[in-house]
Amino acid sequence: MTAYMTEALAEARAGAAAGEVPIGAVLVLGGEIVARGQNRVERDHDPTAHAELLAIRAGARLLEQKRLERATLYVTLEPCPMCAQAIAFARLKKLVFGAYDPKGGGVDHGPRIFQQPTCHHSPEVVGGVQELAAARLLRDFFKERR
Amino acid sequence: MTAYMTEALAEARAGAAAGEVPIGAVLVLGGEIVARGQNRVERDHDPTAHAELLAIRAGARLLEQKRLERATLYVTLEPCPMCAQAIAFARLKKLVFGAYDPKGGGVDHGPRIFQQPTCHHSPEVVGGVQELAAARLLRDFFKERR
Repeated sequence: MTAYMTEALAEARAGAAAGEVPIGAVLVLGGEIVARGQNRVERDHDPTAHAELLAIRAGARLLEQKRLERATLYVTLEPCPMCAQAIAFARLKKLVFGAYDPKGGGVDHGPRIFQQPTCHHSPEVVGGVQELAAARLLRDFFKERR
Repeated sequence: MTAYMTEALAEARAGAAAGEVPIGAVLVLGGEIVARGQNRVERDHDPTAHAELLAIRAGARLLEQKRLERATLYVTLEPCPMCAQAIAFARLKKLVFGAYDPKGGGVDHGPRIFQQPTCHHSPEVVGGVQELAAARLLRDFFKERR
């Protein structure tokens, strides 16, 4: 589990090097990484270009399936409500995330998307995996920007 | 306002003709439609390819801006939590929607995204515009499929 998170952290770092908020994700199916994502909001002028959304879209396109029932998504930060709902739509089996996000998260904070009556699928969720590494990346990024 | 919704309904109908759940959207800026969207989940094998998300992404790409502060989105159905959060990220000025969606909506139902402490922008919202036409499209679509 930590090996996949290490790959997600590498995506986050690559994003930061390109001027993006450092958040990264990998989508794992049958032990293999089938898709990767990093924040691309600035580069693509796309407010929806979060690491999770891009990894899900890439994985679904690759497999030519709108649902990814056996896949696990590893992401360095607790997903926002948009990405949490996308995870539910994609019917992901499992979500593993790094740092918790009390200000913008939508899984353990705010709307707690998977617990809403309007949410028709809830993945297994594991939070706090390599939490400190993910949080440090974000902190350092915003410190440099100030 | 109803003229733009008529255009969104045309997008929804075009989606239905292609086998998609009939939901359509148009993005309006300065009185002009700058982007359009229709559900493409089936065609694109993309669980995130909702009309709203596609219209926002197309508009932001066209204007080369991640935020669309002066834009209004017209969509035939109350946005889901994913699309509502995307609307907040895009900083849209206004959201106009047609039918209400008690089962899957995220604006006036479920997580009520714009009222969450984790939501940092709330557009002006007008619901129920050409509500019956939008609801009829969806009802007819699902009736045929059964």
